[in-house]
Amino acid sequence: MPSPILFYFDLCSPYGYLGSLGVEQVAARCGRIVEWRPILLGISVLQVMGLKPLPETPLKKDYVAHDIPRLARLMAVPYRADAPAMHPLAAMRAFVWLDDQDPAQARRLAQAVFHAHWAQGRDMSAAPAVAELAAGLGHDPGQVLVAIASPAIKARLRARVDAALAAGIFGVPSFVVDGEVFWGADRLPMLERWMTTGGW
Amino acid sequence: MPSPILFYFDLCSPYGYLGSLGVEQVAARCGRIVEWRPILLGISVLQVMGLKPLPETPLKKDYVAHDIPRLARLMAVPYRADAPAMHPLAAMRAFVWLDDQDPAQARRLAQAVFHAHWAQGRDMSAAPAVAELAAGLGHDPGQVLVAIASPAIKARLRARVDAALAAGIFGVPSFVVDGEVFWGADRLPMLERWMTTGGW
Repeated sequence: MPSPILFYFDLCSPYGYLGSLGVEQVAARCGRIVEWRPILLGISVLQVMGLKPLPETPLKKDYVAHDIPRLARLMAVPYRADAPAMHPLAAMRAFVWLDDQDPAQARRLAQAVFHAHWAQGRDMSAAPAVAELAAGLGHDPGQVLVAIASPAIKARLRARVDAALAAGIFGVPSFVVDGEVFWGADRLPMLERWMTTGGW
Repeated sequence: MPSPILFYFDLCSPYGYLGSLGVEQVAARCGRIVEWRPILLGISVLQVMGLKPLPETPLKKDYVAHDIPRLARLMAVPYRADAPAMHPLAAMRAFVWLDDQDPAQARRLAQAVFHAHWAQGRDMSAAPAVAELAAGLGHDPGQVLVAIASPAIKARLRARVDAALAAGIFGVPSFVVDGEVFWGADRLPMLERWMTTGGW
């Protein structure tokens, strides 16, 4: 049984959304499963790396505003360029809560959040929006809201993000296979090549 | 006659070195010429974008230290991971001086600097090193040193970098074809696809 592809994501990242669609295709072709792992750009980029957020970075912000829809068109997947900025904490906490019980359900929720926000342009920042979406997947929305507000879940998310940082992960999406890190949705072809060739 | 591929480079960037090798192959396959254009990361990244240099960015600096030799191995080109950091001003000024007279000669010098520094690990930061390399290409080393120290050439480089920034270029390597910007050595396959398909 080959090792899984570790997929590090932050739901606030449109490149993460595109990467989430691409990595599942790559994994299917390579006979691997995908293990979704949370990271928070607000911690890695802002606090640890000491860089400002992309939307506040001159020149680069204009490039990515053009590049993300271009990449989505190339991948033939839906993307709403007018989707609002997303605050990911509520949804990321709901993910962590579910992931400790059932990773497949957690992944399904994360995929639903990615799709609602970045493909449909529905703001998934607030806890009620996440709970309503989770209800559509069969979860009790009241339980989701309790989990999102729970100090234990907050600490659990922070611990998982710290573990990601300790593993050298800093950007979204990042993919790890057999200890090798690939950063960026545009590195999916290289990730696939690494698996099919055994590396170089 | 199809339009040229604009290749924006800074000689201090190892990704720029790898991009310089890749873009010439892509251009040959697509029947385009490559027009080399200078940019200075010290201005774009530090002054305009307000980000710190890569070697001072936690986590990311470790990733790129692993990624650059991995990309070089994939491309099957020589790369010296122990090459010193490079101060590009002298070499970039020599490029601009030559480029105003003969772009083909300027490109040859830039390629020689890239190779000496990043493939052979010879420090190309200082003006005498650049002049000596230029002498090997048939240029008068004294003239090269005068050009590097010339206020007019300094101003000319600055003007060209300002023009690059005004065109939205911020990172190295960047490739522009028919008005479309692609940033990053790993975007060469996408650049090629854009040219062969006419875009999407």
